[in-house]
Amino acid sequence: MKNITTDHINEMEHRYRASFINSLTGFKSVALIGTKNKANQENLSIFNSLVHLGSNPPLIGMIVRPDSVERHTLENIEETGFYTINHIMESFVEQAHHTSARYPRNISEFEASGLTPQYQENFFAPFVKESSVQIGMEFQTKIPIPLNDTLMIIGKVKTIYLPEESILSDGFIDLEITKSITNSGLDSYHRTERIVRLPYAKAKN
Amino acid sequence: MKNITTDHINEMEHRYRASFINSLTGFKSVALIGTKNKANQENLSIFNSLVHLGSNPPLIGMIVRPDSVERHTLENIEETGFYTINHIMESFVEQAHHTSARYPRNISEFEASGLTPQYQENFFAPFVKESSVQIGMEFQTKIPIPLNDTLMIIGKVKTIYLPEESILSDGFIDLEITKSITNSGLDSYHRTERIVRLPYAKAKN
Repeated sequence: MKNITTDHINEMEHRYRASFINSLTGFKSVALIGTKNKANQENLSIFNSLVHLGSNPPLIGMIVRPDSVERHTLENIEETGFYTINHIMESFVEQAHHTSARYPRNISEFEASGLTPQYQENFFAPFVKESSVQIGMEFQTKIPIPLNDTLMIIGKVKTIYLPEESILSDGFIDLEITKSITNSGLDSYHRTERIVRLPYAKAKN
Repeated sequence: MKNITTDHINEMEHRYRASFINSLTGFKSVALIGTKNKANQENLSIFNSLVHLGSNPPLIGMIVRPDSVERHTLENIEETGFYTINHIMESFVEQAHHTSARYPRNISEFEASGLTPQYQENFFAPFVKESSVQIGMEFQTKIPIPLNDTLMIIGKVKTIYLPEESILSDGFIDLEITKSITNSGLDSYHRTERIVRLPYAKAKN
């Protein structure tokens, strides 16, 4: 086992460190965040910092860097109150990754990446038509993280579109039926294979 | 595509809803959090709410429910300032899952699950010996999330033990070399297979 300490991390070249530290948390949730501003300019951006906050109420958090390409997403969410979370499939992983490129405000990453905006049931923000799990979110609050000037955006689940056969009898969504993929580091994408589902853990006597 | 709305979610049975909403964010980071209190009572608990916050400084967040089994972990982190994050491998997934059982304060989940505490280089908190990626963390701050009475615990990476061959030339850690696994929902564990690593995305002209 190699030991890497704070001193080693501090000495790393900028991009090397970003790649290294981004790998440390393990495999990550990755999804496309769809938004639109009040002037109907659409935006689409890949995020790999989604986190489940709670089920009742159904809350999902995500970390946003206001000085990055993510700022258009943040501005649209704050301006309109709505956004979508769309799982990513292997069939459009390159297009999804391309939404991380730095485009000016008046260019839609839907168009730039070749993905299709889809509007459903009067929900304000665009879903990604190619995605098999589409979640419509209502913005609740943002929580500043002063340690590194990031923000956690918290939203409430309002509406979900997904394949009926992916919902198992206990409520579990089989993410291999939906063909959702996972991410590691800044740029690596992975399919999965179930090892096991385990029963609710009870203390041994 | 099936449509599920807020009304459907509100009507779901408690455990069905937890399983469903926990699946929505996609595949998740999952790891064992090792702690010890000042009286040397060890604790080990599985968490699937880790999130990368930033690389410089290297910060990792995790969501804690203070009214759950996670409270012993939280108390130890606040009391001592240190904890460990340990990736999970297929070879000990059942033991890792078992740490979610509700044990009293004076029982170590290391012992209850059959995993081995390991102390390295005077780092205060115990690592999991069986894990191939062991991260020593220093507690920085906790951020309350009043929407559902949870907390985000933020720590700084202090020391890391991992296989040298898993660190590629650009700093990326190959989590298939380390054999780290991922999680979905409350109880499902998955191995991965790389689809692709993609170059840094640049805007098309």
